[in-house]
Amino acid sequence: MVHQQQLRFSTAGRGTYEISDEIEQVIGASGINTGICQIFNHHTSSSLILCENADPAVRSDLETFMKKLAPDGDGMFRHIDEGPDDMPAHVRTVLTQSTLSIPVHNGRHTLGTWQGVYLWEHRTRPHKRSITVTVIGE
Amino acid sequence: MVHQQQLRFSTAGRGTYEISDEIEQVIGASGINTGICQIFNHHTSSSLILCENADPAVRSDLETFMKKLAPDGDGMFRHIDEGPDDMPAHVRTVLTQSTLSIPVHNGRHTLGTWQGVYLWEHRTRPHKRSITVTVIGE
Amino acid sequence: MVHQQQLRFSTAGRGTYEISDEIEQVIGASGINTGICQIFNHHTSSSLILCENADPAVRSDLETFMKKLAPDGDGMFRHIDEGPDDMPAHVRTVLTQSTLSIPVHNGRHTLGTWQGVYLWEHRTRPHKRSITVTVIGE
Repeated sequence: MVHQQQLRFSTAGRGTYEISDEIEQVIGASGINTGICQIFNHHTSSSLILCENADPAVRSDLETFMKKLAPDGDGMFRHIDEGPDDMPAHVRTVLTQSTLSIPVHNGRHTLGTWQGVYLWEHRTRPHKRSITVTVIGE
Repeated sequence: MVHQQQLRFSTAGRGTYEISDEIEQVIGASGINTGICQIFNHHTSSSLILCENADPAVRSDLETFMKKLAPDGDGMFRHIDEGPDDMPAHVRTVLTQSTLSIPVHNGRHTLGTWQGVYLWEHRTRPHKRSITVTVIGE
Repeated sequence: MVHQQQLRFSTAGRGTYEISDEIEQVIGASGINTGICQIFNHHTSSSLILCENADPAVRSDLETFMKKLAPDGDGMFRHIDEGPDDMPAHVRTVLTQSTLSIPVHNGRHTLGTWQGVYLWEHRTRPHKRSITVTVIGE
């Protein structure tokens, strides 16, 4: 059995947005009891991560880390036409995930207690992001 | 056809633990000949990697690299309540994988000759880690 | 329904090679309308990424970034028998992807407009690389 659905999100600019509930709803709608749920982000300047969802400082520390690792406006980058945050956004995307798969068990996702699915917007300005969720199983 | 099984591992603290044999056993138990095997780690301070399994220096070099990239106790991190290795563990997890998929062919995994599946414990103390393996195919 | 096929690529050494068309051909040959397409690279010194496919400067900037992050011949590495680019190749592989999954919709991949699948060769010399593509769905 296969169930596929497209989700759309409006981000307010750079930052992490939890989408675990939206994913759970698609799994529920699928009617699938056991299998996998694949989450795919159709963009190259935002990405997906599985991350601790208890202390918000974890995600702000991730921003701090990435800002240091791939600084906006770094002189080593040549792809700068769309702004100082453009190439760092591509770097952050390549270092994290565009596609995630999570197991489905008893008709629900099986994320750990402190594990959330996040859309990570890497551009500083707001963007519309499109994600396809595909659930396969029986 | 779908086969799903949970594996539990006790780590001795930070380091890489090969779990290729355990994955192969789940694939064998599934009775599935052709398809994919999804491996999912239910934690945000340990992760999964596919890595060379011949020279152990590769994994110790990976530790050296990560220690330099996200040093324990780095003053830039604010999420420090659980110890100096806590936030670096989240960073290492986000930069590697929580979920891996490998092809199943002729009832076996198809890892390359020098390719192993590793659970990478990022916390310095021993932990119990839970992994779900889902095999889908025919 | 499951369709599985092996692809072989000859790289000219370090650099990114778009393989989106080859993936699309496998999806077409599968006869599968809705599902997922899993792409698996059987090597630990080359990897897979989803990346912008418009401006080639994006990929050359990614090389620049990785060369700085994990420099060839860095004295911190002990795994050096196969050359100065060997351990950096393993690091780059672990920080990017060995396996990617993309959704299949209406018998086609659903990559974003500017999103391409790339094989990233991390060794400086030419190599032969083997990739397994598995399409599952209905």
